[in-house]
Amino acid sequence: MASDQSNRVTGLLVAWDADGPGPAHQRLAAALRAQVNADLLRPGDRLPPTRALAEELGLSRWVITEAYDQLKAEGYLAGRVGSGTVVAGAPTRTPTRTPTRTSTRTPTRTPTRDQGRLNHPPPVQDSLITEEGGVRFDLAPALPDLSSFPRTAWRAALTRALAGVSDAELGYPDPAGAPALRTTIAGYLRRVRGLDLEPDRVHVTQGVRNAVALVCRALRAQGARTVAVEDPSWPRMRDIAHGSGLDVVPVPVDGHGMQVRALAGLEVDAVFVTPTHQFPTGVPLSAARRLALIDWAADGDRIIVEDDYDAEFRYDRRPVGALAARARDHVIYLGSTSKTLSPALHLGWMAAPARLERALADVRDGIGALAPTIDQLALVSLIESGAYDRHLRRMRRVYQARRVAMLAALAVAVPGAPATGMDAGLHVLWRLPGGVDEAAVLARARARGLMVLGLSMCRVGPGAPGLVLGYGNVPEHRAPGVAAALGAAVAAAAPA
Amino acid sequence: MASDQSNRVTGLLVAWDADGPGPAHQRLAAALRAQVNADLLRPGDRLPPTRALAEELGLSRWVITEAYDQLKAEGYLAGRVGSGTVVAGAPTRTPTRTPTRTSTRTPTRTPTRDQGRLNHPPPVQDSLITEEGGVRFDLAPALPDLSSFPRTAWRAALTRALAGVSDAELGYPDPAGAPALRTTIAGYLRRVRGLDLEPDRVHVTQGVRNAVALVCRALRAQGARTVAVEDPSWPRMRDIAHGSGLDVVPVPVDGHGMQVRALAGLEVDAVFVTPTHQFPTGVPLSAARRLALIDWAADGDRIIVEDDYDAEFRYDRRPVGALAARARDHVIYLGSTSKTLSPALHLGWMAAPARLERALADVRDGIGALAPTIDQLALVSLIESGAYDRHLRRMRRVYQARRVAMLAALAVAVPGAPATGMDAGLHVLWRLPGGVDEAAVLARARARGLMVLGLSMCRVGPGAPGLVLGYGNVPEHRAPGVAAALGAAVAAAAPA
Repeated sequence: MASDQSNRVTGLLVAWDADGPGPAHQRLAAALRAQVNADLLRPGDRLPPTRALAEELGLSRWVITEAYDQLKAEGYLAGRVGSGTVVAGAPTRTPTRTPTRTSTRTPTRTPTRDQGRLNHPPPVQDSLITEEGGVRFDLAPALPDLSSFPRTAWRAALTRALAGVSDAELGYPDPAGAPALRTTIAGYLRRVRGLDLEPDRVHVTQGVRNAVALVCRALRAQGARTVAVEDPSWPRMRDIAHGSGLDVVPVPVDGHGMQVRALAGLEVDAVFVTPTHQFPTGVPLSAARRLALIDWAADGDRIIVEDDYDAEFRYDRRPVGALAARARDHVIYLGSTSKTLSPALHLGWMAAPARLERALADVRDGIGALAPTIDQLALVSLIESGAYDRHLRRMRRVYQARRVAMLAALAVAVPGAPATGMDAGLHVLWRLPGGVDEAAVLARARARGLMVLGLSMCRVGPGAPGLVLGYGNVPEHRAPGVAAALGAAVAAAAPA
Repeated sequence: MASDQSNRVTGLLVAWDADGPGPAHQRLAAALRAQVNADLLRPGDRLPPTRALAEELGLSRWVITEAYDQLKAEGYLAGRVGSGTVVAGAPTRTPTRTPTRTSTRTPTRTPTRDQGRLNHPPPVQDSLITEEGGVRFDLAPALPDLSSFPRTAWRAALTRALAGVSDAELGYPDPAGAPALRTTIAGYLRRVRGLDLEPDRVHVTQGVRNAVALVCRALRAQGARTVAVEDPSWPRMRDIAHGSGLDVVPVPVDGHGMQVRALAGLEVDAVFVTPTHQFPTGVPLSAARRLALIDWAADGDRIIVEDDYDAEFRYDRRPVGALAARARDHVIYLGSTSKTLSPALHLGWMAAPARLERALADVRDGIGALAPTIDQLALVSLIESGAYDRHLRRMRRVYQARRVAMLAALAVAVPGAPATGMDAGLHVLWRLPGGVDEAAVLARARARGLMVLGLSMCRVGPGAPGLVLGYGNVPEHRAPGVAAALGAAVAAAAPA
């Protein structure tokens, strides 16, 4: 039974269901979070001491401490147990809907210029200012916020890993990865992606690029000749497939993801797809097409390679389940920590059907590359301790705020060119007004200190111009300057 | 001027050259080390307090502390500054010459059996006892002593790396490695291997197997078709070359290393060689052949791949210089931490001629594997702090003692079958008596809990049987048991 209890110490009203499902500390955290989101608790409000609240609610003090710690990790609360806990600040209010492609697209006039901001950069402490006085941002779509790397948690995880690693584990490792990490990842994928598989189906990789290389070589060794890719898609993947001796054929993408029907006429052995959040258009694969894709694979005993690159960063709702959860014998599932922690860790995973195991092992043997065992065990520690989930929750809030700020700034800078993509991930696709030369825009953006990926780089066939804009490293207060610089680049490149 | 000064506190006589070349603490350490080696200081002898010795010798106290710490790292001294420093024990006296192939080889009679030791294993704390009561040792020739991994020093190095890594370095890394590590390795190779090259010629790898994979693919991409290997040699290398699309031709090895003259008649683009310590025979490449090999490479603009896998573990003298130091434009040099620290680190390096740089970069791009940046920076810290050198010095003493113990034990177990190889590395080659079936010996050794590499695995062509025995993980007191078990395996497999 839910009952509202007024806290005698602070007057805190906690909507608290003493008999609800799930762990008490999680339910209490959810209740407090809801209070903050509903503005019933406001920045600076003091929370009751853990002991007082524990007595009040008839809970153990541990439950209160856990709930407070969780909310501190998420940024809702601040302070230390003992010296008082306060509400840290309301989270950024964000629209749950982003601009969509269906917005009316009017030809753009000369965009609003906001160059004053660029010519008068903030003080010199800001390392993102180039010598020329321009803003310098790497807007690569896959780059996480590097300043948010959880150094303390990772150091603690490394320390625990080093303390716990056995002498035997310091010998020649299993090329498929440390058994402990394979077990942990299997559990993680079951929990967050609905993927139910045995640990020995999980292979540790050095990130998605490395996984694609292993998969392409294994497929080739098993006789595959041709793979299909989405058009547009991640250009590196096509390069790696080519380099592995595979032919690559494109399949068009529309507002519902890859046009699965187009696969029917093609002689391909496997398809690379980003169903959760298509790269770079940002749309999810529709439910009907997901089913059709699985049927296609099952009918011809073909392989789907599912790059689940942004599943951790869905802001408006839970991400749709992984394709691999529906068709584990036909899907190779790829994930990594490159966007959740840092690409410098070179640490990821792959779940593959058993029939590919031998070929994958052979390819690994021939490359001799693997994440260090201590790093693998550190990731085990990070995940099992809950620190990984806490970091993801915190980063979802950071990125959502950055996304909103970037979309708003772009709308101001170039009113007629909507940025698209669902409320997820680390990038938006910004389609350029007709007649604008994408290469010229990129060159001018570069001259202004902005590294940007052009949509044409992602395309196999021809198509309209656009920019794939990563906002992971653009704090909210810098978004207007970045957007203005992009707007200026577009204006300068527009036909007279 | 050298002057002998008698220490007033302990009567310690230090042969001390106050004006000699080099840092004072190193000269003092050398002088004390010499005292221990000459039995002038003996186990248990107390050294003077640092302050007293500093006054005595007219040196700063820091010099004394450094010298003591160095000798503690090497195992000569024990105790803590403050509570007294004592001589830890004379180092194991070892013959500077190991048995050689020229020893008279008499057919072996039934070897001495020492099975009692195996049937009555030490107490259960010993984790190397199998459930069946047999001794279990991995005698892989490349396995370092895993219990000696410098956990504390590596943790400190990781901590420093994490504290010092910049946000930018946590982004997508340079696939050739962190610039700081490339600089540190260039300095290290200059210092210890006489290899003078610019940091951008150094590429970070994930160990020698990974380096061989990168090199083979890069050579193939540049048009190479055939590579030569030593016979016998490391079997994995041949597998990787084959897997990269290269044909492999063998070149025989004798007591002076690879028979370089045999290359003259072969159509090969590159040769893989272990000149410092041939694997697995343990002989160095003779000076004349080193020059001939370099001439061969220069004449045909060919590539020598120098696997310097054991350069750190020469026990009787300094290792000969690297081939790469003499012919940097024709030699790809490979090194790693797999035997000096742990194969689980997957961290190594390669120095390559500039003309291979583009091909190597392309291969790396297509594989997407790299040691994590934090690990790379930790190795920088380990080397620059001196901890890496201290660890190597300590391990040289450990392995030399194990080597001596293993050779002695083998000589007792099977008197007529000498183990060969120079006083270096982590393995000996044990040639089996004529008529013994190598595969049968391996199977029987395995049944006794001993994992052993057979010489025939290393051969391309036919040849006499033998065992490649790694002693890195065999403490001295276990050597007799291991040797006896091997002797029993040989006896059981010998013709009746």
